[in-house]
Amino acid sequence: MLELPSVVKNAVTALGRLPGVGEKSALRMVTAMTNWRTDELHKFAQATGALADLKECNSCGMWTEEFICSICQDPRRTESQALCVVEQVSDLLAIEKSGQYKGRFLVLGGVLNPLLGVGPDQLRLSRISDLVKKDGIQTVILALNPSVEGDATCAYIKHILPVEIAAERIGFGMPIGGSLEYLDPMTIGKALENRKSF
Amino acid sequence: MLELPSVVKNAVTALGRLPGVGEKSALRMVTAMTNWRTDELHKFAQATGALADLKECNSCGMWTEEFICSICQDPRRTESQALCVVEQVSDLLAIEKSGQYKGRFLVLGGVLNPLLGVGPDQLRLSRISDLVKKDGIQTVILALNPSVEGDATCAYIKHILPVEIAAERIGFGMPIGGSLEYLDPMTIGKALENRKSF
Repeated sequence: MLELPSVVKNAVTALGRLPGVGEKSALRMVTAMTNWRTDELHKFAQATGALADLKECNSCGMWTEEFICSICQDPRRTESQALCVVEQVSDLLAIEKSGQYKGRFLVLGGVLNPLLGVGPDQLRLSRISDLVKKDGIQTVILALNPSVEGDATCAYIKHILPVEIAAERIGFGMPIGGSLEYLDPMTIGKALENRKSF
Repeated sequence: MLELPSVVKNAVTALGRLPGVGEKSALRMVTAMTNWRTDELHKFAQATGALADLKECNSCGMWTEEFICSICQDPRRTESQALCVVEQVSDLLAIEKSGQYKGRFLVLGGVLNPLLGVGPDQLRLSRISDLVKKDGIQTVILALNPSVEGDATCAYIKHILPVEIAAERIGFGMPIGGSLEYLDPMTIGKALENRKSF
């Protein structure tokens, strides 16, 4: 088998670490990149390397270039007195995209998982009580994914919240555009359980 | 819509330039990369930026870090007195992977395309005569893709070659593992035309 130049091999290895990119796609990317100009390559390297400068908001864990992110800085976000707890930044972005929520967020950084050594201290759980006290949060929306660990984390949060604070988990049921025929039995079960008068 | 930090936007734009990567996958990649350590990010940036140092072999156009690539440096490659002409490096790699060819290569850098302003001077066409003269090539294998431009380029190469040099185009027909039912009429036509006694 032909030995590729180490520059190419290193680039293939680097790109192959990206999610959804295997060795074949990585080589395809490298082939495309060899047609880029030097300044384009340097711009790419600079833009991706600069992610090392990205910080986590000191209040909620969202991506930011400052100390506090734009969401936490926005006073209108506190008006709704709601706090939405998510596992990771991509979940926050998905909820923002829906345009249906205008309150504050808290990015936990994962869910409780004793088997992987993730306990309360590894997550941003203590921030919940801080925010509730300091920013007058009345409702905590638990937007964690449905899984054993997600369920356990929700139970833990409910337990550490003062009793007067409402804890609500996002609704589970049939996705819009879905088809009953192809839906898994667990989701159908949840959809039946969560039915509303019509 | 939420304004993302410019570091994130730049990284999404950079990754979105890769083939097969849209805005959504790019954001997914950035999300994964935010979990990388700083040294991992810098290594990634270094490995991709280093592609700017990659050179083209002065003889055949293959990727190399030196003046002449490892294929052209290998004396055994000249023994077969064959030269395989391909459009781009990825085609060379595909042929190498088959393990069925042990001769020299020439990477044209594209095919003749007057509409896009690609004439003989934009391609590595003059190298063919040089190699034939200098390295005693007897057979030129035209491994260009079947297209109007590929066909025209093959005709051009045949025209500039000395008459005593054999010019052969790779065989067209049914791919192994293919199914006649789903094959396009052009390929079936070629397969019938190129049948061999059995």
